[in-house]
Amino acid sequence: MTKKVLINEVGLRDGLQIQQKFVPTEGKLELGQALIDAGVRAFEAVSFVSPKAVPQMSTAGEVWAGLPMKDEIYYSALVLNEKGYDRAMDSGAKVVSMALASTNKMNEANIRLDLESASAMFVKLIKRAKDDGVETRGYVSTAMGCPYEGDVPVETVVELTKLMLDAGADKISIADTIGSAHPEQCKRIFATVVEKWGADIFGAHLHDTRALALPNAWAALEEGIREFDSSIGGLGGCPFAPGAKGNVATEDLVFMLEQSGYETGIDVGGLLRAVGVAERLVGLKLGGRITEWWLSQERKKAKAAAEAA
Amino acid sequence: MTKKVLINEVGLRDGLQIQQKFVPTEGKLELGQALIDAGVRAFEAVSFVSPKAVPQMSTAGEVWAGLPMKDEIYYSALVLNEKGYDRAMDSGAKVVSMALASTNKMNEANIRLDLESASAMFVKLIKRAKDDGVETRGYVSTAMGCPYEGDVPVETVVELTKLMLDAGADKISIADTIGSAHPEQCKRIFATVVEKWGADIFGAHLHDTRALALPNAWAALEEGIREFDSSIGGLGGCPFAPGAKGNVATEDLVFMLEQSGYETGIDVGGLLRAVGVAERLVGLKLGGRITEWWLSQERKKAKAAAEAA
Repeated sequence: MTKKVLINEVGLRDGLQIQQKFVPTEGKLELGQALIDAGVRAFEAVSFVSPKAVPQMSTAGEVWAGLPMKDEIYYSALVLNEKGYDRAMDSGAKVVSMALASTNKMNEANIRLDLESASAMFVKLIKRAKDDGVETRGYVSTAMGCPYEGDVPVETVVELTKLMLDAGADKISIADTIGSAHPEQCKRIFATVVEKWGADIFGAHLHDTRALALPNAWAALEEGIREFDSSIGGLGGCPFAPGAKGNVATEDLVFMLEQSGYETGIDVGGLLRAVGVAERLVGLKLGGRITEWWLSQERKKAKAAAEAA
Repeated sequence: MTKKVLINEVGLRDGLQIQQKFVPTEGKLELGQALIDAGVRAFEAVSFVSPKAVPQMSTAGEVWAGLPMKDEIYYSALVLNEKGYDRAMDSGAKVVSMALASTNKMNEANIRLDLESASAMFVKLIKRAKDDGVETRGYVSTAMGCPYEGDVPVETVVELTKLMLDAGADKISIADTIGSAHPEQCKRIFATVVEKWGADIFGAHLHDTRALALPNAWAALEEGIREFDSSIGGLGGCPFAPGAKGNVATEDLVFMLEQSGYETGIDVGGLLRAVGVAERLVGLKLGGRITEWWLSQERKKAKAAAEAA
């Protein structure tokens, strides 16, 4: 089984979307460049959603136009309805993500549709994308727990996966949107979908709310998953709600993977420089769980070098 | 395979031993009681070592005498030479731990013997304990990396395990003393020893220096390991060396295990009360990685209860 793992950086979208401090287009592009410099080659870069609902994403078109478009960099844009899809097409997006939540209440909160209507709407959009030759990434969001309805049966995840694959989705990402998963659950869910469809089309989208994102990622990896969403510095969640952490930090995930012999093509030191950029932009202390240790090692090395000189 | 996991709390020894603020006997016993109240039933309670080298452990005899000795609570005492063993026997210990490091330099730093001499000394002590009807826990320390000699071959871990088992050791704990392990390495080491001797006699002793203790624990668990050392609040490491974290925090490990359907018999809320005791005793902010989230949930519940009243 391959040791190559694709890291899909979602800090520019999932990470920034709920930050109180508005980050202008040039700041977002600066962060994107810092991540590219660190070796990141896949991004969920923007969402085309209502600028009223999500002011940080009002810059989506500008950001998309400003990104360095190169063959070796993979960019996706999140769309949650037809209007968003149209805007993504106008911007020239070649990959769109869509997030179908696992429950009625979560879909209602997110897009004001119940699960059945949301399913029908996304099926239609996926088919349209197929016709347009656009790649689609179907997210089963709140797949490991819903803030409104609680536990989500594995059968629901399988059903929504099948629905999107049948409509023509190219990839499926199983999302622990609120960070309520535990590793046994991750193992069970990924084992189930991998058995049905193979590992190659699946990704995992994990949040670190309860500090279990790394063991969850490890459990998914052991089931053959080789694509993970993550967010630089653990950006995301709500900075004003203690304990509500964001996505698994890219630097933590990359560190664990590289240490364990997996290949991400990404440099942890470069990621920590990107964390610095993100901190300046959002005006908050960020950073995953390995930051403190990493910086202490760098200080040690610098001291040793100074003493040797 | 059993879902029961034994948590061996080492905060009173490994956690406190390098704390700058001296914790008197009554403080240590208060912390022990808080942990018992939370449901902890196994402790490495003290080490019988030179009070000059480790002043915190100068209270070992007093602490041992003050612990609530009950059939359902398992206490071990660390000894590193014959003198320590004699003191443990004088105190009435029924279980002793011994730490044989994997390299010459680590043994020299720890007990001023090279690997061969250290091995011979511990073999002699284990045999003596066997004759005395005392249970022995043999630790292969720095089994996953040595601060002086770097990488440690799996073969060395197997060899030292065999040496101690042949001498009559009852349990073997494989220790990532400096927290340098990654989950692939944990998996490989535990798979190797479990294949040879079965999982039942093995425990894992993990440190969280590089934030990988939970995925490492998960990897060990998946190989059948059902006994883990951990330290309340992540006590240990050096509080004055940024980045040098202590043992995996008991509350994090218990939370992950209980969430995943394993049974520890321990209550996370009770552990967080014990963290409060430990913080007061050592005068430092402590707490594992789930603390912030857990407390935010408790605040939410309290607010909801107040509004309902």
